Parts: sequence; structure tokens; C-alpha cells
Amino acid sequence: VIQHPKIDRDRLLSDLRELAEIGKDGTGVRRPAYSEADIAARHWLAEKFRTAGLDVQIDRVGNVFGRSRVSRALLMGSHSDSVPYGGWLDGSLGVIYALEVARALSAAGVIGAVGVDVVSFADEEGMFAGWFGSRTHCGDFDDSVWRKFWNAEGVLLAEALEAFKDRQRSTLDKSRNFGYLEAHIEQGPRLEALGKPVGIVTSIVGIRTCKLYFSGRADHAGTTPMPMRKDAGKHLVALLSRLCARFKEAAGEDTVWNFGNIIMKPGAANVVPEHAELFVQYRDSDAKNLQSFDAILADEIRAANAAEPNCCSMSSTMATEPIAMDPHFRQVLRDAATQLGHACEDIPSGAGHDAAAVGMHIPIGMLFVPSIGGRSHTPEENTADEHIVAGAEVLLAATQRLLESDA
Amino acid sequence: VIQHPKIDRDRLLSDLRELAEIGKDGTGVRRPAYSEADIAARHWLAEKFRTAGLDVQIDRVGNVFGRSRVSRALLMGSHSDSVPYGGWLDGSLGVIYALEVARALSAAGVIGAVGVDVVSFADEEGMFAGWFGSRTHCGDFDDSVWRKFWNAEGVLLAEALEAFKDRQRSTLDKSRNFGYLEAHIEQGPRLEALGKPVGIVTSIVGIRTCKLYFSGRADHAGTTPMPMRKDAGKHLVALLSRLCARFKEAAGEDTVWNFGNIIMKPGAANVVPEHAELFVQYRDSDAKNLQSFDAILADEIRAANAAEPNCCSMSSTMATEPIAMDPHFRQVLRDAATQLGHACEDIPSGAGHDAAAVGMHIPIGMLFVPSIGGRSHTPEENTADEHIVAGAEVLLAATQRLLESDA
Repeated sequence: VIQHPKIDRDRLLSDLRELAEIGKDGTGVRRPAYSEADIAARHWLAEKFRTAGLDVQIDRVGNVFGRSRVSRALLMGSHSDSVPYGGWLDGSLGVIYALEVARALSAAGVIGAVGVDVVSFADEEGMFAGWFGSRTHCGDFDDSVWRKFWNAEGVLLAEALEAFKDRQRSTLDKSRNFGYLEAHIEQGPRLEALGKPVGIVTSIVGIRTCKLYFSGRADHAGTTPMPMRKDAGKHLVALLSRLCARFKEAAGEDTVWNFGNIIMKPGAANVVPEHAELFVQYRDSDAKNLQSFDAILADEIRAANAAEPNCCSMSSTMATEPIAMDPHFRQVLRDAATQLGHACEDIPSGAGHDAAAVGMHIPIGMLFVPSIGGRSHTPEENTADEHIVAGAEVLLAATQRLLESDA
Repeated sequence: VIQHPKIDRDRLLSDLRELAEIGKDGTGVRRPAYSEADIAARHWLAEKFRTAGLDVQIDRVGNVFGRSRVSRALLMGSHSDSVPYGGWLDGSLGVIYALEVARALSAAGVIGAVGVDVVSFADEEGMFAGWFGSRTHCGDFDDSVWRKFWNAEGVLLAEALEAFKDRQRSTLDKSRNFGYLEAHIEQGPRLEALGKPVGIVTSIVGIRTCKLYFSGRADHAGTTPMPMRKDAGKHLVALLSRLCARFKEAAGEDTVWNFGNIIMKPGAANVVPEHAELFVQYRDSDAKNLQSFDAILADEIRAANAAEPNCCSMSSTMATEPIAMDPHFRQVLRDAATQLGHACEDIPSGAGHDAAAVGMHIPIGMLFVPSIGGRSHTPEENTADEHIVAGAEVLLAATQRLLESDA
């Protein structure tokens, strides 16, 4: 008997809250990749997937899959790891949504030749490497990286993965998974400011993260005349002032940038800085704007080194390109929201997501729900229950349409 | 029998080297105030003073005195504590010089009614409080501060002083000590650059040290649009850029300034800085220049808070006024150098010294010897043996003249 599939509001919210108990830390969670709590959450999810009638696999890097018994499926999910002092919804929301959609479809008996595969990817937050689980699943990381990444506690990735050493590897099967649909909290203030419960993601921004290093010489700041100094901090401040002005000038409407840290050594009031570091990050969904910033940065580093030879160097720690959502997926999400009467808004994702890794290989779509106060990566992170439920309803309706259009 | 007093070159250098063995750390020393090594060095000095025929006192805060058995004396010395990774001459040079001068005068039989008192002051380097020993001896610190200062390891000053709990207090006796003469390494590059072995200190700079605090809000640097941010780092950089320009504009010929550290929290590439700190220090021997800088700083803090209410605050950690050397002492030092054929140069002291504390109460003079490469507060700190000996010879000749002129 085929019924109209429905989100079970109570089951959805109670599963989210139950998952938040694993690694609970006040109102937030601490489930950094491959911690005891993260692994426990993955086993909890595996059991939930099994109970939902899905075929379970935990793979060699800790990705958890719950696959429908069909030959073709929409891949859905997100991640269940967190930052060290994280919130309860970042990642978890998308995984439990996918589980609930699978259960709703199954209960209604609507899954035929095309179904859904649910996934929780590992280490999305990059305690070892950003989007590690999804990039490994997609074949973009080989095993050599296991010996190249450490977490902040000095644990080697290869050691952390011992917990999964008896597991099989998994590989994205493009002939099976015709697309990937991920829901996530917005992690920003826009939807809340607009008063809309649903965001239709247009693209995931490209991200550049780098550090600039400035070198000088530590001298006594009382006894060394100003002209005889080599002040690493002075070079940093001069370059930074110019970056501030030029980035502002060159920015597109949605470009964001951040100078998140400055480190000076030895760092004493009476010692001229010998070494200085500047953290630079910028993001845009338009590659041209990223390239403008790249050019400004390179130009300013050249200018600094022309003024004082070898005073400045750069190392890039992340450089991803913007990735667009599939237009069909976007339309389907928009139609689903409209059908259910939930106001929605096109919105770029300023944060990276597993979808950015998967989207290099198959079509992707993403849905956002509002973050209260725009807060995330903090125990204060939260979303109104009504918005959590609205997002799940839109995701379910969109999934039905995508399965029908592929069938 | 009165002979011509002479510096014993070998005794001088071997005493300096023997003292450097206490708390030795590679080519440097680690004798932070009231550490085991610092206390051991003080007992070693007491024994040296005793052997030299001086009356020894270690006082209630660890100052070590070796007094001549006369009713009137020139106080001479420096300090024997060091910064944690310090050099072998900073402070020690001036103490061993004073000891050697006392021995040379005594051996020559020239001490009559007026003699020399030798001192090694405690905690000159301010592990607990800058010039703590000399300021206490001069009556500028009462015991209440013992419960107000901690060192970086969290030890309370009162606890550190337990090592001297059975000792008597000491107080500067102005009717006895008609002046204070201190020799020290330059800690800067000027004498070396000039090729002169002796510096006649003109004054000790006034020093302002403060921290500026900037407050903002931690937001996700990818998802929070630029206009919705409160970026503590942005305020800091804006103010610092203006300070750099205005300090340069207002500086006198010898004004020095330093922005020795910047701290940002939480300090992640992808989080907007919630909190930022800027270390500011400036020094000048001309009080007017210090006041100009004070006014610029106050003005820029006002401007920052006018632009963004309460985004910036300041706490002052040090504010000393410049102090001039006694003209007679300067002349005597210059005459002594000239008499011995050692080229000398008038030079302001960019670093603080115990003389600055003592100079609030009695006339002071200071002599510098060159620092190789201008290095100090590092194990690389060094001075050529010939310069060490030349400095001692000038100090001895100057001391004779000062004793004669007071007699």
C-alpha cells in the first residue's frame, strides 16, 4: 500500500537529541574525528540505519552508509563529527534528515527501482584533513595521506584509523548514486534576518587559506635605534594595512575575508619581533573574485620583498574552487518548498561542506535551515524546532521528486 | 704603603667566568630572581665580598652588600639576577667591576675616610617587579607589594622571599652613600658601530609600556557577511596603522617604540577575532617626547571608541620618567677615560637600570662597555675581553676621582 510519505516530527527531534547525548558537552557536543564519542556516534548511526531496513557499511575511514536495497539511489547525508567545542546540529542535522527521509519513504512504500543511500562522512571538520571521509570515498585521497596528517593532539591519521582496520574501503559508485543531496544548518545570520525557514544553496564558495610569514631580528627595543632594526611585525602591519584597503576595493558583493590570527615571536613588549605570522582567508562563489584577491596578495608579497629582501613568504593551507549546485536539484528544492508553503531564499554557502567534495563527481543539491543568531561551531548553536521540521519536510518532498525524475 | 691602584685583569675575568658557571646554560646563564641559581650566586658574591675585606649583608629581599669599614662611601654595583635565557654579563659585569674596584683600592691602600660599598641588587629584571631590590632598598616599595606580584610560574613574591626570612632589611643611607656608580653592558649596537670601548651614559630613558585591548564578536568567517561582523582584529589593525604613522611623525631623534606582540582570540583562520591585544612600548630620555606619544595614543583610543563604542581599552603596565646622570659623575667618567686613552662617547641608556631607582635619591653615574652585535638578553650576549678590562680601568680611575672629590 503506497501512502503519502510523512516526516515523523517526534522521531526526527528525538533522534537528533539522542545523537547529541553522545559526546554531549553542555548544550553542545564534542565529537572531533575519531574520538571515542565520534566512533560511538558512528556505531549508534549504523544501528539506526539497520533498524530502518538499510544495508549498513562502516568503511575503512569511518564513513557510515545505510544503503537501500535497490540498484540506483540518491546519496543523502552529511557528517556526524564535530569541532572540539561544537554545536549539536552541525552535520548531525543532515544525517538524521537523510535517515528520516529514508524511513518516511520506506514506511510509505514508495521506494521502487530508485531509493536513497544515507551517509555520515568522517572528519568533515578537518581535525586531520578537511572533508577527509567524503574525499576518500570519492577517490580524491589515496592512503599515502594517512601518514601525512596529524590532529592538534599529535595523533597521526594512520593511528586514528586503527579503529577501522578490519573494515572494507568504499568508493563512490556513479552508476548507482546519480546525485547527492545534503541539508545543513546555515551557520550564518542571513535566513534568520530574512525570516525564512529554508535556504536553497546556490553554490559553495571557493576558499583560500594561507599564512604569511615575516622574518626580522630580535633586538632589545630600548637600546636598538629605530633605523638599525629588522622588525618582522612592522613588515606584517604595513602589508596588512594595504591588504585591508585593497581587498575592500576589489571585493565582490558576497566576498568575505578574514585575518583570523597574528602571531609574533618572541612576543615581549621590550623585544623587536623576530618572527610574525598572519592568517589570511577569503571566500567567494565567484572564482574571478578569488583570483583578484590571489593577485593582490601575490602583488603585496612581491612589494614587501622588494622593499626588504626575503622578509615575507607564504604557505597555502587550503585552496578550493567554488562549486555550483546542480540547477535541476535547486529547482526541485525550490518547488518542494513552494509546494509546502515554506518561504525560501537562494543563498550561497560561505562554509565548506562534504557536498563540495562529492560535487566534483556527481550532481549535488543543498538545503539550509536558519541558525539562531547565526551561531555555529559553538555550544550556543541552535535552530528552532519548527525550522528543523520544515527543513525535513522540504527535503523529503524534494527527494521524492528527484527519485521520480530519475526513475 | 700607598701604590697606584690597578685592575687585576686575570682576577676580573676569572671572577666573571666563575659567576657565569652558576646557572650556566650554554654560553648564557639562567638566574631568574630567587631561583636556586640566583640565590647561589648571591651567596657566592657574599663570600667574595667577605674575602675582599668588606662587611657583608644579604638583606630581607636578597640584595647583597659588601661595605667598606668607613663612614662615607660611594655605592657601586648592579645586579646578578638574569632573564630566563640571559647572557653572562648583563648585571654581573657591574657587580664584579665594583668588587674589583674595591679590591684594587684596598690593595693599593688608598681608602681613607671615604670608601666604596659594593652591591648586587635583587630582581632587577622584574621577574616579579622591575628593579625590585633597588626600589625596596630606596624605600619606594613597602612590604604590601610582596603579596601583589607573582612571577610567570605563578610563585607569589612573598613565597619567593621566604629564602631570606631571617635577614634584616636594608635602607639607603644618604648620609653615607653620596652617590651610585653603575657599569653595565650597552645592550645595543652603538658603541660597537662607533668603535669606542666606553660609553658615558647621559640619562636613562623614561619608559611607557601598555596593552591595548580590542573587543569584537567571534563569528564564522565564511558565513557572516562583512557588514554584520564585529572584528576586534580590524579595530586593532586600523589603530595600529595610524599609530605607526603618527609615532614616526612625532618621534624625537632618539625616541624608540615597539609593538612587541599582538594576540588574537580565538585565533583561527576561519573565525572572526573576538578579542585582540596590542603590546605598545616607547622610550625617550626627553619627557616631552614621551608626552607627545602619550597624547597620540590617548587620541587614537578616543577615535577608535568614537567609531565603535567601547571597542578599545588600555592598561598601563609601566610608566617611568627619564632620569639624568649627575653632570659631575659624567665629567669624572669622561676625564678618567681620556686619562687612560680609551675613546668614549656620550650615550643615552635605552634600557632601564637599578641606577634609575637609586637616582631618585642620590646622584648617579653610569658607564657602558660595548655589546658584540648589540646582543643582550640572550646567551649570545658578549663583550670583548679588552673592552671588559678597559671598562674596569675607567671605572677604577673615575672612582678614585669621586672618592677624592668627596673626601
